[in-house]
Amino acid sequence: MRYELHYWPDIQGRGEFIRLALEDAGADYVDVARRPRGAAALERLLRSRSVARAPFAAPFLRAGKQVIGQTANILLFLGPRLRLAPKRETDRLWVHQLQLTIADWLGEAHDTHHPVAGSLHYEQQKHEAKRRAANFIGERLPKFLDYFETVLRRNPGGYLLGKRVCYADLSLFQMVEGLRYAFPRAMARLERGYPRVMALHDRAALRPRLATYLASSRRIPFNQQGIFRRYPELDPV
Amino acid sequence: MRYELHYWPDIQGRGEFIRLALEDAGADYVDVARRPRGAAALERLLRSRSVARAPFAAPFLRAGKQVIGQTANILLFLGPRLRLAPKRETDRLWVHQLQLTIADWLGEAHDTHHPVAGSLHYEQQKHEAKRRAANFIGERLPKFLDYFETVLRRNPGGYLLGKRVCYADLSLFQMVEGLRYAFPRAMARLERGYPRVMALHDRAALRPRLATYLASSRRIPFNQQGIFRRYPELDPV
Repeated sequence: MRYELHYWPDIQGRGEFIRLALEDAGADYVDVARRPRGAAALERLLRSRSVARAPFAAPFLRAGKQVIGQTANILLFLGPRLRLAPKRETDRLWVHQLQLTIADWLGEAHDTHHPVAGSLHYEQQKHEAKRRAANFIGERLPKFLDYFETVLRRNPGGYLLGKRVCYADLSLFQMVEGLRYAFPRAMARLERGYPRVMALHDRAALRPRLATYLASSRRIPFNQQGIFRRYPELDPV
Repeated sequence: MRYELHYWPDIQGRGEFIRLALEDAGADYVDVARRPRGAAALERLLRSRSVARAPFAAPFLRAGKQVIGQTANILLFLGPRLRLAPKRETDRLWVHQLQLTIADWLGEAHDTHHPVAGSLHYEQQKHEAKRRAANFIGERLPKFLDYFETVLRRNPGGYLLGKRVCYADLSLFQMVEGLRYAFPRAMARLERGYPRVMALHDRAALRPRLATYLASSRRIPFNQQGIFRRYPELDPV
């Protein structure tokens, strides 16, 4: 099965959580919008009047005739197929629950620079962004890190399920990457308190296929259009 | 199977999406935190050091030994068991995708009154709330309503899947209820443009078990502590 990933071609964004799973699994996939005229194909599908089950937004995945939207839902679908989720329903629901918690965290990270509206520029909501980012760094970021550190402590082995990797591990790796890009000062202060989360990050980065991907041109660098953005005034000393 | 729902006892909040599914299905369940000392049990489990797979936040569901967190994940689990989701994987993923889109919408509705921080009072972020609510009403609310109207138009029958009800229909009913409470003026202007969404709402409200529930004291009234809140200044004429 060749999967078709549809996501905006110039950012890591939410699509990156899917890319990491596909890459780590060595899956056969096409990042459609990064090919010539690919972004137009993405927008065409979003606006098409003929698709009975159209997604609300990108990313979405085409798998044969199926079109699947919502990042966590795509990973729910891919997990067992890419051997990045266990088979037992109980375990799959737990991995999905962790993924949904990461999705909440990611949404909050995004809203630090866009607390008023995604359709306005950062400069139009800079005042509000400063307040929201301060709360994120002081309160929410430690709360989420605490949570994942606790899960890792209670399930020893190095990954969220213990010894076996799952797609939520790759997403947690990506959260650390993104947070280090966006909030380098806050992360420098906080990281020592979360040794298990940071060790998971480092362990994931060494996975052979993931390391190859991260060093390749397929990995889009972080930038100021994505979900994680570096505005020094939002990450004070 | 007797399900145990754990959620804050004084608000509809996210727990209501689970309650609606359990009630419509006539399921055997206990709303634990609404019983004497029930809220303490909820907090104890959230803080317990012995639960290997603890949820990040309420709501969570106990089903035998299983503890399941994240609203959409709980509905994913309950769907087939309550006959509120189809059996085919493709269809179950589609219903879940709709539920996750509703979760995004709900998060945005919440952030209209708390755009800076959930831990601050509304009065401490009133200025920011006005800007965010204006964008929500002018841009995001119509976008989400458009989307669900389109899904209903492309899948005729009255419910999101066509003729057969699923848990996402009950959640869409709840969105309309909550939005009418929080933004009565905006909804009065917008509703005529979304006849299928409003018809779904009315159809769901007439389902016998749901109607009984809605008229009972088990249905907590909307109030100013929940996700949907009525601040007239956020819903101008």
